[in-house]
Amino acid sequence: MVPQELLKDALKKNKIRSEAYGDLEYLRFTDDFKEIPRGTVIFKDTVIWGYPHIGRIFQLSTGIKEQFKDPFWVEEKVDGYNVRIFIHKGEVYALTRGGYVCAFTTDRIRDFISLEVFEEYPDLVLCVEVAGPENPYVEESPPYVKEDIAFFLFDIMQKNRQGFLPYREKQRIIEKFNLPSVERYGLYTPAQVEDLKKLLKRLNEEKREGVVLKEDSERDKRVKYITSYANLNDIRITSLNMLGLPADYYTNRLLRLALFVEEEKLNKEEKLYEELGKAFLEGLFEACDMAKKEGKVYRVFRCRFRSKDRALFFLEQIKHASTHIQVNMLSLDKKRDFWILEFEKVFLNMTGLLGHVLGGGSIID
Amino acid sequence: MVPQELLKDALKKNKIRSEAYGDLEYLRFTDDFKEIPRGTVIFKDTVIWGYPHIGRIFQLSTGIKEQFKDPFWVEEKVDGYNVRIFIHKGEVYALTRGGYVCAFTTDRIRDFISLEVFEEYPDLVLCVEVAGPENPYVEESPPYVKEDIAFFLFDIMQKNRQGFLPYREKQRIIEKFNLPSVERYGLYTPAQVEDLKKLLKRLNEEKREGVVLKEDSERDKRVKYITSYANLNDIRITSLNMLGLPADYYTNRLLRLALFVEEEKLNKEEKLYEELGKAFLEGLFEACDMAKKEGKVYRVFRCRFRSKDRALFFLEQIKHASTHIQVNMLSLDKKRDFWILEFEKVFLNMTGLLGHVLGGGSIID
Repeated sequence: MVPQELLKDALKKNKIRSEAYGDLEYLRFTDDFKEIPRGTVIFKDTVIWGYPHIGRIFQLSTGIKEQFKDPFWVEEKVDGYNVRIFIHKGEVYALTRGGYVCAFTTDRIRDFISLEVFEEYPDLVLCVEVAGPENPYVEESPPYVKEDIAFFLFDIMQKNRQGFLPYREKQRIIEKFNLPSVERYGLYTPAQVEDLKKLLKRLNEEKREGVVLKEDSERDKRVKYITSYANLNDIRITSLNMLGLPADYYTNRLLRLALFVEEEKLNKEEKLYEELGKAFLEGLFEACDMAKKEGKVYRVFRCRFRSKDRALFFLEQIKHASTHIQVNMLSLDKKRDFWILEFEKVFLNMTGLLGHVLGGGSIID
Repeated sequence: MVPQELLKDALKKNKIRSEAYGDLEYLRFTDDFKEIPRGTVIFKDTVIWGYPHIGRIFQLSTGIKEQFKDPFWVEEKVDGYNVRIFIHKGEVYALTRGGYVCAFTTDRIRDFISLEVFEEYPDLVLCVEVAGPENPYVEESPPYVKEDIAFFLFDIMQKNRQGFLPYREKQRIIEKFNLPSVERYGLYTPAQVEDLKKLLKRLNEEKREGVVLKEDSERDKRVKYITSYANLNDIRITSLNMLGLPADYYTNRLLRLALFVEEEKLNKEEKLYEELGKAFLEGLFEACDMAKKEGKVYRVFRCRFRSKDRALFFLEQIKHASTHIQVNMLSLDKKRDFWILEFEKVFLNMTGLLGHVLGGGSIID
């Protein structure tokens, strides 16, 4: 549990907020605070620990040698959003990384996860990446999720405890309950850097995001490594809303891209340069077009809900989630087994700035 | 003069610092504070006002219509650093934009400016862009300055006064004292947008930075406009030291570039994309190479001084100017009429980060 002293201190420093989801009330750590990660959530008698940060390596050959002493498990890193799924008073919930109960993900848990796992192990917290073209948060999607969303379990935690179940225990539970998992590529030794590079080359060609490496040892050391495809794709997908993201989102990805290419001796040539330039500019051109023709810069999202109420509740949640984004519902219609919610996110920074400068306004920068 | 009340207030809020240049002591505004611009400097009985911010327009066709009622003067914007030159107690000094007396620029004033102008008008403050391959601050240089530096006057202010001399008065003084000036393209009416676009197209092809437009009216309204060449070049020149600049340096330039291309219907094609990608990545590749082979990321600078003492003094100034840059002298030798100072700037952020990650270190971001 979280010590009372620390809790008081966090409250005083404004690092905790009280939240509600229907009748469910809970406390949420809005930032990292001492040893408590952001997104840690406290119900009356239960703590769901936040998902910890994982360090990133930029080059495999030196990175593996530096980071690992023992063999490590290799898993796909799926490009979606991270949730923690658990049972509380007979109900199942999904928490976002930041610690909000997400009405959308919660609505869809039963479509992907057999709840039997919680009957046998009520204290488990399943760490799952949710990804696909019809998710409400991330504009990217793995190429192999063709519609709707999919769940990809990558870790299992327990209530009131920091840290993860051991890897083999996780595998056993995945198999026993037939849980959807990220792709697992098995155990590599630190000497197998060349094999790992081959794997990454394939993942890059298959347009996947990268890998997470988890040492097969007591200390459970982890690092992640991202493909150049994913770095380019992050830029391509977000450049439409460039002013909505912290600017170092881009410089970080440029640096990762350069280091990936540098290590792999990849095509330092026209094609790479052209792809990068295109990734930055095409989104900006599209944003200019939208601002001129429609007076706003936006993206349309579409998600499938089982429950109409939860769709409406989710819309309220997301409307209050960001000050830089205006969310407008476009439609909510029943189609076969689903309520299809369509909404647009209007990117206010881009809309405002482009409206101003396309109209001839000046800016002091 | 600056009101006493405001001065006290600024001191209390830490917006003023006391500086010395040899025996000369002065106060310097470190930030904008109320109506006082950053870089404003106070000697005992004299105020040299800071050079004010000028707004930027992103598109000419709408920008001209929106910003100007009357005809406006068009001048080249030269890519260098901005200084204010004046006489104080018989000595001539150059202040940087931030309000430091610059030992380098001060050393070279007589090579470019006839001091007769101050004999006749001791209260003038000449606003000058200093540019060229052998300047100690800016790694870019206009294509037509082939060696050393050159001075380009663009405005004249007066001691103890805000605002500029009228344009025609400035022209008269430039001609009378044969002062070096930025290129002046004459008076344009707001209806002459197409002519202005033609001019900008030429400047872009000639690899110049852009223009400053100054309304021929009492209010002396000004805006600036930058070529796509200059935006690309800024990226190309600085990407080696990407972590040494605020990340929005890059997103701002991307946005300007997109708006320039969008308005001019320029080649939205492979070549532009390739140039942009190259501008970002080649510097980063070079930085990786340097970090691997030499253990540091750096650039070498070279400047010509008349006085050896001022060269040494300048070196001390620049050593204390930034916490993210380490300055090392490489040589200081007399060659004909000049003392040639060579020094390197080691970019500590890039050196540190690349050393860490190339060695296999991980980063939480």
